[in-house]
Amino acid sequence: MHYLPPALETLVEQFAKLPGVGVKSAQRLAFHVLSLPQEEADQFAKAIHDAKRSIHCCPICQNFTEGDGPCPICADQRRDTSVLCVVSDPKDVVAMERSREYRGLYHVLHGVISPMNHVGPDDLHVKELVARVAEGSVQEVIMATDPDTEGEATAMYLSRLLKPFGARITRLAYGIPVGSHLEYADDATLMRALEGRRDI
Amino acid sequence: MHYLPPALETLVEQFAKLPGVGVKSAQRLAFHVLSLPQEEADQFAKAIHDAKRSIHCCPICQNFTEGDGPCPICADQRRDTSVLCVVSDPKDVVAMERSREYRGLYHVLHGVISPMNHVGPDDLHVKELVARVAEGSVQEVIMATDPDTEGEATAMYLSRLLKPFGARITRLAYGIPVGSHLEYADDATLMRALEGRRDI
Repeated sequence: MHYLPPALETLVEQFAKLPGVGVKSAQRLAFHVLSLPQEEADQFAKAIHDAKRSIHCCPICQNFTEGDGPCPICADQRRDTSVLCVVSDPKDVVAMERSREYRGLYHVLHGVISPMNHVGPDDLHVKELVARVAEGSVQEVIMATDPDTEGEATAMYLSRLLKPFGARITRLAYGIPVGSHLEYADDATLMRALEGRRDI
Repeated sequence: MHYLPPALETLVEQFAKLPGVGVKSAQRLAFHVLSLPQEEADQFAKAIHDAKRSIHCCPICQNFTEGDGPCPICADQRRDTSVLCVVSDPKDVVAMERSREYRGLYHVLHGVISPMNHVGPDDLHVKELVARVAEGSVQEVIMATDPDTEGEATAMYLSRLLKPFGARITRLAYGIPVGSHLEYADDATLMRALEGRRDI
């Protein structure tokens, strides 16, 4: 690393800070940036700058949004305001929307409860969720946190917290992923798929 | 991708343009940038901007450098100016310097001759190399292009071009990589290793 000009070394270090990018990849990316036309490199720098400055959390669902007021999903009059889907991350909203199946609203926690990482309910957007459910118009809350230990625990914690308000609390179904092979399914998934079997 | 705010989508697109970064990874990287403190995101944007603005090719060896005049390697009085190592890419200078073995100078071609990709000698820094060798003080030119078809062809082309000037033209040795296993070596490498065997 001592053979690179300082500005290039700085750029390599910046890339190496990204998740999943090691020093070798960071070098490759930095050299790629140098090979870009000036204009494209500037656009890249500007995109980082702009995204960080202009994007903030929607005051209602806490999903990432731009500009003032609620995000496009919360502002959409055609969505079903009686259903809330609770996800841990803005990426999960993208995944849910991609399915084109869900027409309700979201609530983004921005994390999961994780005592190991010192993340408690107060570090997440839990009280905003409680306020939305307490307000009374929500009929169903779908817990769509990840099906891992922390996601499970978060879903359980929230369901106990929200039960008193009378809304129906549901959890996404577990089972065999569509298009996969039974022989590769793990025991826990198979067990859950069997438990959740339905008449056809 | 229609579920992201425009500034975030722009950032994802920018990341997705990087080599080896798909849309999924680009999304992950963009979300990571959003999770950074404002200051760190700005530093990242600045690093891209600065690197592209301040780095240019050394007027002597064509390696990347900052500031006016020759690069630190060309300017280093302790280096052996009678030996030139010809590489295709600035990354290769980094690799050679890492070995701490080579004390001569470099010449960076910025590519290899590749008729398939319409890259001819005129698209590379070949005439600068010829000028350096023609000047007369260079005793040896080490061809250190990659040991693939294009690297080979480039080395052959340059050696014919430079022979008339009387300098010794050499090529990096082929053979078994240190720390590898004979059983995994390919036939071509084994053949070259056998050809290049030395007394011990």
